[in-house]
This record gives sequence, structure tokens and C-alpha cells, in this order.
Amino acid sequence: MSSDPVNLKQKFDLFADQWQPKVVAEMNDVQFKLARVEGEFVWHDHPDTDEVFIVIEGALEIDLPDRTIELGEGEMFVVPRGVQHRPRASTEAKIMLIEPRGVVNTGATDDERTAPNDVWI
Amino acid sequence: MSSDPVNLKQKFDLFADQWQPKVVAEMNDVQFKLARVEGEFVWHDHPDTDEVFIVIEGALEIDLPDRTIELGEGEMFVVPRGVQHRPRASTEAKIMLIEPRGVVNTGATDDERTAPNDVWI
Repeated sequence: MSSDPVNLKQKFDLFADQWQPKVVAEMNDVQFKLARVEGEFVWHDHPDTDEVFIVIEGALEIDLPDRTIELGEGEMFVVPRGVQHRPRASTEAKIMLIEPRGVVNTGATDDERTAPNDVWI
Repeated sequence: MSSDPVNLKQKFDLFADQWQPKVVAEMNDVQFKLARVEGEFVWHDHPDTDEVFIVIEGALEIDLPDRTIELGEGEMFVVPRGVQHRPRASTEAKIMLIEPRGVVNTGATDDERTAPNDVWI
């Protein structure tokens, strides 16, 4: 997969489910994942890694313990390791997540939206 | 820096030089760098790491030993470690590079465009 170009918007057309990240590329042990998100996710953290959010289309809010980050299209944010966060979107947003292979989307928080890993699209 | 949102297009307005990547974010040991590129770069490789190219605006071609990758806006490509490559753009393109901290833009190839590292913007 890593040897083909990836068109991000075309990849989004291949799935419709929300909060279920799909891997589109890997760089070393880092995965690039696309997700459609809408509504409020669960509060969680990743104790061992930072996590990158990039908004490809729409708008995303990321609640942090002390503030809310507002991201529009073409904006990115790095949630530092160990920091509790809750992504949410009032209407569907298309986002790219970048983090090491094996990171669970809900961290240590049990949730019905806990997604399987390594689902390529 | 990692604790502020980054607007990619606004960041590009802060510099004009070409082939001189500027760091805008870090995730663990991975850096996110923006560069304006035009013309033909030098053939080089990075023996110890893959390298990600994402086109933010314009179009980029990446020559590989056996083919040429053509990327438009919103498209990405991962150059595998150790693979010789030559980025080029017939008109100026705005791109994001993602690779571990400390990678030299020209690899082991000496070139006048070899850029300093860790230049944040």
C-alpha cells in the first residue's frame, strides 16, 4: 500500500461508517488513518504517544481538560501524550489521524465505539 | 508549539523561500514540515526512514528509479526508506513533509539546497 499515491478525498468515498479509522498509509511505525466523525466521542487519553488530528473537510472540536481546540479544514493539532481529550463534531467531519501503529482509538476507556486496528482502505 | 492549532495555509504565508522546510508540529519524534518547492530537486535517499509527501496546494512529481509519481492537491505518497527519489514541480507547489526529526532534506547527497533542520515557523 505504501507504494501507491493516496488521494484523501477519494478514500473517504470508500466508506461511510463513523468513528472507525481506516489506515491509508504507513511511514515507519506511524499510521495515517482517515475517519468520518460526528457527535461527541468519549473522553480518553493515550499515555504513550502524541496524536495528530488534521481536518480534511468540515470542522472538529477537541475538548481538553482546560480548553477547547477548534479546527477547520486544513488545520491540525497535536494532542500530547497523556492528555485527556474528547473529539466532537456538530456535523460530519472528515479527519486524518496520525499516530503509531497499534494505538486504540478510545485509549484505555471502554466504549462501544472502540474500533479494530489495522483496517486498511 | 505542539499545544497550538496549526493552520497550514496561514503558515505558508509566513515564508517565501523554496526547498527550505519549516517545522510546524511534532508528534513524538516525528516532524511535520512545510515547504514551497519549484523546479527539480536533487536525487537522494534516506537509508533509515520512510518519508511522507502531502500536497497542500499545486502539483508535485516525484521521480523514482522506475517510475514517476504524480500528486495533486490532497494527495500523499510515502517514499520507502532507501529508495532514490527526486521531487520536482513545474510551478510552485506547497507541500507537507513528514519524517523523523533530524532527517536531512538532501539525504547523503551534497547540494546547495541542503537545508538546516529544526527551523520552526
